[in-house]
Amino acid sequence: MTLALVLVILAGLVAVGYGIITTQQVMKAPAGNERMQEIAGAIQEGASAYLSKQYTTIAIVGAVATVLLLLFFGFDFVPAFGFVIGAVLSGAAGYIGMLISVRANVRTTEASRHGLQQGLDIAFKAGAVTGMLVAGLALLGLAGYFAILTLGLGFEEESRRVVNGLVALSLGASLISVFARLGGGIFTKGADVGGDLVGKVEAGIPEDDPRNAATIADNVGDNVGDCAGMAADLFETYVVTIAATMVLASILFVGIPAGEDGGLSAVQTFMLYPLAIGGSCILTSIAGTYFVKLSKGSTNVMGALYKGLIATGVLSIGALLIVTYFVTGFSDQYVIPGAGGDGLRTFTGMSLFWCGLLGLAVTGAIVWVTEYYTGTGFRPVKSVAKASESGHGTNVIQGLAVSMEATALPALIIIVGIVTAFSLAGLYGIAIAVTTMLALAGMIVALDAFGPVTDNAGGIAEMSELEGSVRDTTDALDAVGNTTKAVTKGYAIGSAGLGALVLFAAYAEDLRYFASKPETYPFFDGLVVDYSLINPYVIVGLFFGGLLPFLFGSMAMMAVGRAASAIVEEVRRQFKEKPGIMDRTEKPDYARAVDLLTGAAIKEMILPSLLPILGPIVLYIAVGAVAGTAQALAAVGAMLMGVIITGLFLALSMTAGGGAWDNAKKYIEDGNHGGKGSEAHKAAVTGDTVGDPYKDTAGPAVNPMIKITNIVALLLLAFLASQGAA
Amino acid sequence: MTLALVLVILAGLVAVGYGIITTQQVMKAPAGNERMQEIAGAIQEGASAYLSKQYTTIAIVGAVATVLLLLFFGFDFVPAFGFVIGAVLSGAAGYIGMLISVRANVRTTEASRHGLQQGLDIAFKAGAVTGMLVAGLALLGLAGYFAILTLGLGFEEESRRVVNGLVALSLGASLISVFARLGGGIFTKGADVGGDLVGKVEAGIPEDDPRNAATIADNVGDNVGDCAGMAADLFETYVVTIAATMVLASILFVGIPAGEDGGLSAVQTFMLYPLAIGGSCILTSIAGTYFVKLSKGSTNVMGALYKGLIATGVLSIGALLIVTYFVTGFSDQYVIPGAGGDGLRTFTGMSLFWCGLLGLAVTGAIVWVTEYYTGTGFRPVKSVAKASESGHGTNVIQGLAVSMEATALPALIIIVGIVTAFSLAGLYGIAIAVTTMLALAGMIVALDAFGPVTDNAGGIAEMSELEGSVRDTTDALDAVGNTTKAVTKGYAIGSAGLGALVLFAAYAEDLRYFASKPETYPFFDGLVVDYSLINPYVIVGLFFGGLLPFLFGSMAMMAVGRAASAIVEEVRRQFKEKPGIMDRTEKPDYARAVDLLTGAAIKEMILPSLLPILGPIVLYIAVGAVAGTAQALAAVGAMLMGVIITGLFLALSMTAGGGAWDNAKKYIEDGNHGGKGSEAHKAAVTGDTVGDPYKDTAGPAVNPMIKITNIVALLLLAFLASQGAA
Repeated sequence: MTLALVLVILAGLVAVGYGIITTQQVMKAPAGNERMQEIAGAIQEGASAYLSKQYTTIAIVGAVATVLLLLFFGFDFVPAFGFVIGAVLSGAAGYIGMLISVRANVRTTEASRHGLQQGLDIAFKAGAVTGMLVAGLALLGLAGYFAILTLGLGFEEESRRVVNGLVALSLGASLISVFARLGGGIFTKGADVGGDLVGKVEAGIPEDDPRNAATIADNVGDNVGDCAGMAADLFETYVVTIAATMVLASILFVGIPAGEDGGLSAVQTFMLYPLAIGGSCILTSIAGTYFVKLSKGSTNVMGALYKGLIATGVLSIGALLIVTYFVTGFSDQYVIPGAGGDGLRTFTGMSLFWCGLLGLAVTGAIVWVTEYYTGTGFRPVKSVAKASESGHGTNVIQGLAVSMEATALPALIIIVGIVTAFSLAGLYGIAIAVTTMLALAGMIVALDAFGPVTDNAGGIAEMSELEGSVRDTTDALDAVGNTTKAVTKGYAIGSAGLGALVLFAAYAEDLRYFASKPETYPFFDGLVVDYSLINPYVIVGLFFGGLLPFLFGSMAMMAVGRAASAIVEEVRRQFKEKPGIMDRTEKPDYARAVDLLTGAAIKEMILPSLLPILGPIVLYIAVGAVAGTAQALAAVGAMLMGVIITGLFLALSMTAGGGAWDNAKKYIEDGNHGGKGSEAHKAAVTGDTVGDPYKDTAGPAVNPMIKITNIVALLLLAFLASQGAA
Repeated sequence: MTLALVLVILAGLVAVGYGIITTQQVMKAPAGNERMQEIAGAIQEGASAYLSKQYTTIAIVGAVATVLLLLFFGFDFVPAFGFVIGAVLSGAAGYIGMLISVRANVRTTEASRHGLQQGLDIAFKAGAVTGMLVAGLALLGLAGYFAILTLGLGFEEESRRVVNGLVALSLGASLISVFARLGGGIFTKGADVGGDLVGKVEAGIPEDDPRNAATIADNVGDNVGDCAGMAADLFETYVVTIAATMVLASILFVGIPAGEDGGLSAVQTFMLYPLAIGGSCILTSIAGTYFVKLSKGSTNVMGALYKGLIATGVLSIGALLIVTYFVTGFSDQYVIPGAGGDGLRTFTGMSLFWCGLLGLAVTGAIVWVTEYYTGTGFRPVKSVAKASESGHGTNVIQGLAVSMEATALPALIIIVGIVTAFSLAGLYGIAIAVTTMLALAGMIVALDAFGPVTDNAGGIAEMSELEGSVRDTTDALDAVGNTTKAVTKGYAIGSAGLGALVLFAAYAEDLRYFASKPETYPFFDGLVVDYSLINPYVIVGLFFGGLLPFLFGSMAMMAVGRAASAIVEEVRRQFKEKPGIMDRTEKPDYARAVDLLTGAAIKEMILPSLLPILGPIVLYIAVGAVAGTAQALAAVGAMLMGVIITGLFLALSMTAGGGAWDNAKKYIEDGNHGGKGSEAHKAAVTGDTVGDPYKDTAGPAVNPMIKITNIVALLLLAFLASQGAA
C-alpha cells in the first residue's frame, strides 16, 4: 500500500517536473519584436488582472464554504481541509497554465515566422504544460490527501472520514471549476461576440484589428476561458471521477476477502487501483507528447497531434496491463453485490483491464464522433455552410438541427459503455472505464490548451502587422485548435456524464451503507428509499433535476448577451469619442474593455453557480416537508439522474453545435459558397456568434454544474449521517 | 352504466351537432368579392390537395399497421378495429376542421370590412367548430367503442380485450397525429421560411404579397399545419389520456369493492368517471363559446377570448361537482395500493373532485406562464427585441436563452401537480387531474384554430388589395392569434407531459398485472422487473429515451430547412423566368409551390415517425439479447420516462422560444427599437425564421412522438402477454 501510493505520488511529481522543465524551454524561445511584446504584455496584464479578481472572489466564496463545512461537520478538519486542497490545486493548475499560455502566444508567433513545425512546437509545449499540471496536481491532491489520512493519521481506508475528505476535495475542485467555466466563459464570449458585432459587422474592420477596443479583451478571454477555465473543468472531472471510484470501492468491497496473494484488503486494492491507473497514464501521456511532430514535408498539424494522442493510447494499454497485474492480479476473483436484482457478481482483475480498455475505446469513439460533427470535411458542417446560402435564419436552423443530432451517437456510445462495463464488473467496472478515460486527461488537455495559444498567436501577428505568411502559419495552427477544442469538449462531457453516473452510484451505495448501520447512523434507521420510476417522488426528482441544466444554460447565455451588449456600447463610445482610432492616429483604450468584462463576468458567475448548490438542499427540504425523509432522499437521488440526463444532452448539443457553426464559417472563408464577404459568409458569422456562448460558456459549464449537484447531495448524506434519529 | 354511457355519447353528439349548426352559420356569411373568392379558392384547393395526399399516405401506413395488428394479435379484430376508429376519427376532425377553416378565412376578411366584432365572430366560430369536433369525435370514439365492447359484445370492463381495444384506438389517433404534425409542420414552415427568405429578404416585397409564388402555399400551410395538425394533436392527447386513465382504472380497482350505494363495481365507476368528465366539459365548452364577445367599445380581442375560456373553466367546476356526485359520490371511500412503498391509499370522490380542480388550476397556470413568455407586454419578449438592436446573433442568443428559461416554471407547475394529485388520490388522482385538464380541449382548440383563420384573413386582405383598414382589423385579430397559438401549445405539451406519465403508469401497472397472473400469462412467469435508478439498464433506458426527442427534433428541423431551400429556389426561378411578376404583369405559378411542398412534406414525415415506433422494439430486442427479458422490460419502461423528460423540456423550450421570437418581431414592427425596416427588425426577422420550425414543426411534433413511444410499449406488453413462456 505504502509503496504503491508513493509510486503514484511520484508519478504526479514527474508530471509537475515535466511542467517546470517544459516551461523553461518555452520561456527560452525568442519573444519577438517590441510591438509584439507590447501586445503580448497587454494580454498578460489583462489575463492576470482578470484571474486575480476571479480568484479573489472565489477565495471569498471558498472561505465561506470552508467555514460552513467546519460548522456542519462539527469542526472536523478533514472535510474542510480536503475542500481547501481541491480548490487551491484546481486554481493553481488553471492559473499557472494561463501564465504559460500568455507567454507562449507571442513566442509561437515569433516561431511561426520560421515555419509551421517551429510554431507547432512552442504552442504544443505550452499546452502540454497545462495538461500535465492538471493531471499531475489532481493526482497529487488525491493520492497525497489519501496518504495523509490513511498512512499519516491512521484512518481506516473505508472509514467515513476518509470518504468525507475525498468528497470534500471534489467539492473544492468543482466549485472552482463552475466559477472558472462560467466567469471565463462569460468573459471570453462577451468579448468575442461583442467585439465581432461592433467590429466586423458595424465598423467593417477584420477580426483582431488593433483599432477594435475589444481585441485585447478577446485575446485575454481565450486564455481565461479556454485555457484556465478548461483546465479547471478537467481537473474537476478527473478528481471527482477518481474520488467517486474510490468512495464506491470503499463501500462495495467492505468485508470482501482479499485476493489470493493476500497483502492488501479488497477495499485497499480497489481504492488504490484508480490512483494507480491515473499515475501510470500520466507517464504515458508525457511519453506521448514526444510523438507530436509533423511528418517530413507534411503540413498536417492535426495528424501530428493525433500521433501524440494515439501513442499515448497505445502505451496506456500496456501501462494498464502492468498496473492491473500488480494491483489486482489478472485472475483473482472478487464477488460483489450486483445491482438491479441480479444477485452477486464475480469479476477478476482481467475484467477490470477490459473495462479500462473500454474506457480508451469510448474516448476514441467520442473523439471521432466529435470530429465528424465539427470538422469541415464532413456532412454536418458542410450542411450548415450550404444552409448559409439562403440566409441567417436557415444557417441557424441547420446549426440547431445539427447540434441536436450530434447528441445521438455519443449517447449510444455511452449506453454501450455502460452495458459492457457493467456486465464485465458491475458498478465498479463502469467506474474503472471512466477512470481510464480520464487518465488520459493530461494529453487531452495538452491538445486543448494548444488552442488558445495559437488563437492568440494569430491575433498578435495581425495586430503587430507582421507579414501575411506568418498569419497563414498561425491560421493553419488555429484551424486545428478549433477542432481540438471541440474534441476536448466532447471528451470532457462524455466522461463527465459517465463520471456523474459513478457519483450517482456513490450516492445510492452511500445511502444503502448508512441504512445498513442504524446503530451508528440513527438518522437512517428504518428508512426505505425507493428509487423506482413508479414512485412519483422519483419522477418529481427527475423533472426537477431535468430543469436545472436548462435554467443554468439560460442564465449563462443571457449573461453573455449582456456582457456582449456592454462591450458593443463601449467600443461604439470609443469610436465616437476618439475619431482618430479608425485612421490609426489614436489608440483605443483596451484596458477599459478588459475592466468592463472583468466586472461583468465576476458579477454574472455567482447566481447560476448557486443553482446546483441549492438545488439538492431545496428539493430535500420541500419533499421532506410533504412526504417525509425517505421520499425526500429518493427525490434527491432521482434529481441527480435528471440533471445528468438533460445536462448531458444539452451540453453535447451545445458544444457540437457551436463547433459546427464555427467551422462552417471557416469553411466558407476557405472560399466555398462565395467565400469571405458573401451573403453566405454574413449568415455564417451570425451562426458563429450564436455558437460562441453555446460552445464556450453554457455548454461546458453544464459539466461541473452536473457534478456539483451530485457532490452536494453526497455531502448532504454525510451531514445527515452525523445527525441523530430522523 | 348504460345510462351514464348513453349520456356521455349524447354529449359527444351535442358537440358534433354544435359543429354542424355553427358551420351553417359560418357558411351563410358573405364570402367577399370575386378577387377574394379567387384567392380563397386557391387556398382551399391547395389545402384539400395536400390533405388528400397526406391522408392517402397515412391510409397506406394505417392499412399496413392494421394488418400487423391483426397478425400480432392472432386475428383478434378488437385492437385492429380500435386502431381504425382512432385513426379515422382523428383524421376526420382535422380534415373537417380544415374544410371550415379555409372557408371561414375569406368570410372573416369580408366581415372585418364591417368591424372587429364581426371579424372576431366568424373567425372564432370557425375555430369553435374544429374545437368541438375534436372533443366530440374523440369522446364518441372512446365511449362508443367502450360501449360496443362492454354493452354490445359483453366483455368484462377489466378484460384485456377492452384494454387492448382502448390502447389500439389511442395508437390510431397518435399515428395520425405524428404524421399530421410533422407533415403539416414541414409544409407550413417550409412555405413560411422559404417564402419570407426569398420575398421579404431578397426581393424586398412585403409578407403575403401576391407576387411571391409561395404566398398561397403559406396560407395553405396555416390550415394544414396549425389547424389540421393541431386538431390531430389534441385529439390524440385527449384520446390517449382518457384511454390511459381507463386502463389504469381497469387494473388498479380490480377486486376493490363498490362504493356504499352499490350499483356499479369500482372498476366500472372509475372507467366511467373520466368519460363523464369529458362529456360534461364538452357541454361547458360549448356554453363558454357564447361568452366570447368584445366588451362594449373595447378592442381587446384577447380579453374577449379569455372571457370564453374563464366561463368554461368556472362552469366546469360546477359540472365536475355534479359528475363526481353522481358517478363516484362525495364520501364513499376507496382503497387502492399506493406506489413508492407507501402501502395502501384511501381516497373519496371528493378527493377526485379536488384532483379535477387541480387540473383546471394547472391549465390556468400554464396558460399564464406561456403568455408571460410569449406576450409582447413582458420581460422575455422585450429582452429579445432589445437584443435585436445589436444584431442577428444576439437576437438568436437571447431567444435561445429565453426558450430554455421558459421550461422552468411549467416544469415546476407539473411537479406541484404530480405531488398534489398523488397525495390526494394516488396514480389515479394524477390521471384525473390530466383528464380534467384535457376535458377543456374543445374550448382550447377553438382558441387555437381561430389563429389560422385570422392569419389567412389577413393574407387574403393583402393579396386582394383591400383598403388598409381591413388589414388593420385582421392584423388586430392575427396578433391575438399568435398568442393563442402559443398558449395552446403550452397547454398541449404540459398536458401531454402529464398524460405521458399516466401512460407510463399504465405500462408499469400492466406489467405488474401480467406478472401477478402467471397461469394466464406464462410469458411473465417469474419476471421481476426492477425500475430502480440503480439498475444500469434503467439508466440505459433513460439515456436511450432521452436521445429520441433530440434526434426527432433534429430531423424535423432539417426537413423544414430542406423544404424551405426548395421553395427559395422555386420562387427565384419563377422571378427569373417570368420577369413580369415584379411589375404585376404576369402571375406567379402558385400551384407549383404547393405541389413542391406537398411532395417534400409527405416524403419527409415518414422517417422521423419511425423513431418512436421502432425505438421501444429495438431497445427491447437489444437489451433482451444482452441481459434477458426482465431487464429489457425495465429498460423499455425507463425509456418511456427518458422520452418524457427530454421531450417535455425540448418541446416546452421550442414552442415558447418560437413564440417569443415571433412576438419580438411584432413588438419591433409596432414601432419599438427602430420599427419596421430598421437593423433591429432585420435581426428580429432572423429570429422569427429560426423560431418557425421550432414552434410549429419540431416542438409540437414531439408531443405525439412521446405518446407513440409509450403506446407502442403498451402494445408490446399486450403482444408478449399473448405469447407462451419466455
